[in-house]
Amino acid sequence: MRRVRFSVAMSLDGYIAGPKGEYDWIVMDPDIDFGALFKDFDTVLMGRKSYEAARQQGSGGMLGMQAFVFSRTLRQRDCPDVTVSDTPEATVPELKVGDGKDIWLFGGGGLFRSLLDLGLVDTVEVAIIPVLLGSGVPLLPHPAARAKLRLTGHRVYEKTGTTALEYVVV
Amino acid sequence: MRRVRFSVAMSLDGYIAGPKGEYDWIVMDPDIDFGALFKDFDTVLMGRKSYEAARQQGSGGMLGMQAFVFSRTLRQRDCPDVTVSDTPEATVPELKVGDGKDIWLFGGGGLFRSLLDLGLVDTVEVAIIPVLLGSGVPLLPHPAARAKLRLTGHRVYEKTGTTALEYVVV
Repeated sequence: MRRVRFSVAMSLDGYIAGPKGEYDWIVMDPDIDFGALFKDFDTVLMGRKSYEAARQQGSGGMLGMQAFVFSRTLRQRDCPDVTVSDTPEATVPELKVGDGKDIWLFGGGGLFRSLLDLGLVDTVEVAIIPVLLGSGVPLLPHPAARAKLRLTGHRVYEKTGTTALEYVVV
Repeated sequence: MRRVRFSVAMSLDGYIAGPKGEYDWIVMDPDIDFGALFKDFDTVLMGRKSYEAARQQGSGGMLGMQAFVFSRTLRQRDCPDVTVSDTPEATVPELKVGDGKDIWLFGGGGLFRSLLDLGLVDTVEVAIIPVLLGSGVPLLPHPAARAKLRLTGHRVYEKTGTTALEYVVV
């Protein structure tokens, strides 16, 4: 079964983007091997806002991954580079039992909350950046149901003080 | 100079208590040496809500520490066991230059935000519990100003998957 992995950078106070969507606080530690991370995935899941932000930034081809965008308003014919779905509860289980590598749940906490509620998230992997943002886009928008985690991995990147923590959703 | 240290347990999504003030999600790892931690401190700072919660739970004497409660509504004569102040910007600097051990900033995110704004917090020390709460009392209530941190220590407690991270406020 393919795993759905929510992998994001987070401030210590639990934000994944600033109040205006800023990412300027994310320090890229030279020792983080993004190439190795990306190789685990061939599919990416995102919400409408993350998709529109990615498209504006021109991240064409979504890193060469097959991309699924969950939205009730986007139309498939306007988004030829991705698959649009408004039924994550059907699309994601289908993907999980299909062939392929792991599935990257990218960006937006809203989609994370929906998929967590549906029991469709396997791991939560956060890189904690040494900053307090004070406001922004939360990792998990409230209110959300409580979810137990189990720590399965950790690494501290000394150059920037970034702490990577990996959890399985129990 | 005595340090003001904000030391708390936190859920991965950035809450220090549940929506009704619950602490039932905090797993006490048997390897955490609370005795050694408490020995660093002889003074505790808290807001009104944390004080009232502690008093209700009957934690008499505040662990034997000298306690300062910051509130505009509490009256000193109603709280004989603590010192009440409504001017943290005067009281805390005075404490810092006085004699004694480190000062524990305890509980409530509201007081943390005020003291952080005033540049009076030296360290942020969080024990990240492997749980997503989905709502509750935030580590740092928003909106708050951005604050840079520097990671100075870390330890993973394997039995419970609690991750202790220590930062200096830059």
